[in-house]
Amino acid sequence: MRQAMGDLAFRTPGQGFTEITGEVADWLAGQEVRDGLLTLFLQHTSASLLIQENVDPDVQADMLDFFRQLVPEDTSLYRHTAEGADDQPAHIRAAMTQTHLAIPVRDGRMRLGRYQGIFLFEHRSDPKRRQIALHLQGT
Amino acid sequence: MRQAMGDLAFRTPGQGFTEITGEVADWLAGQEVRDGLLTLFLQHTSASLLIQENVDPDVQADMLDFFRQLVPEDTSLYRHTAEGADDQPAHIRAAMTQTHLAIPVRDGRMRLGRYQGIFLFEHRSDPKRRQIALHLQGT
Amino acid sequence: MRQAMGDLAFRTPGQGFTEITGEVADWLAGQEVRDGLLTLFLQHTSASLLIQENVDPDVQADMLDFFRQLVPEDTSLYRHTAEGADDQPAHIRAAMTQTHLAIPVRDGRMRLGRYQGIFLFEHRSDPKRRQIALHLQGT
Repeated sequence: MRQAMGDLAFRTPGQGFTEITGEVADWLAGQEVRDGLLTLFLQHTSASLLIQENVDPDVQADMLDFFRQLVPEDTSLYRHTAEGADDQPAHIRAAMTQTHLAIPVRDGRMRLGRYQGIFLFEHRSDPKRRQIALHLQGT
Repeated sequence: MRQAMGDLAFRTPGQGFTEITGEVADWLAGQEVRDGLLTLFLQHTSASLLIQENVDPDVQADMLDFFRQLVPEDTSLYRHTAEGADDQPAHIRAAMTQTHLAIPVRDGRMRLGRYQGIFLFEHRSDPKRRQIALHLQGT
Repeated sequence: MRQAMGDLAFRTPGQGFTEITGEVADWLAGQEVRDGLLTLFLQHTSASLLIQENVDPDVQADMLDFFRQLVPEDTSLYRHTAEGADDQPAHIRAAMTQTHLAIPVRDGRMRLGRYQGIFLFEHRSDPKRRQIALHLQGT
């Protein structure tokens, strides 16, 4: 049993989904561990990690619409408004989704389902630099 | 330290909860690892894993009602409608719940609380075959 | 590679957030593992673990308001009402947030982002004793 740690950074284009499956797979391919468990941990409180369908982009567009409607960007609803109308909704949307993911690995590949992709889900309106801490352990 | 990997498959009866605590415990009982960490990863984007109360079935019935009301099955709300009115809501409900769970293990048993059970939460209307990838590590 | 297990218990003051970053860091500081992965597992179904901003308390107050409004404490909405108007909403709010967290550890410190804190998110109205099972592995 051994372990590896790493970091990935992404520039998001504002609210929406950035698929990062390829970047994570590339990092994994560079590690000696072939069978084990991969953990991704997002070091931010206004974005999320999400595993979702990566075939039809409409799935992501509909999901973005849903979260925007569920958690409105209306400053009259919140106390925490100093960083903009999108800031508190971003924290709430992040709380309703995932900050970390763990994915079993076999033969150097993540055991994702056929239609599963890993997404960075940006909740802020402006582009942001987002960092993910990686941890891998196994044999 | 050693690790084990496995798979469990379930046939869900359509929308609702299937408790899988027993099947997971049975798989765990067949492994040599007695103390460690168990990870369950669901290989689908329209169902979830959930740890919830397993005593009163009303808890699950109320939870199902809540998610059905929060994310309506109304095709006029979504772009992604080709697979049926329940498909996009299923993706959204899955995004709001869990795709993976990690549970500490001691003496060959999951360290669940007294009233905690593990559930497969099906979001699609029709019965589906659902696969869970398992990972266990420890001593 | 080695592992350690432990427990932390907290008394919550009723609905709201209790930051537990310090207690978790203290437990971690007492372990021999310096680099690895820390998992926290909450042994309850009506409270959650959450990583969120720990700078401005308004973020937490707004988040509490949001979840109270999204999942109303109105017994006419639920079947499961024997334990009080706050009980079923507590289960639903727990299902929409996290029961477990996994955080990479380096040099004996959790790799949290600059503004990230770990919170115990109590969904019940009355004070409760809450237990978290800890698992740490690494070198």
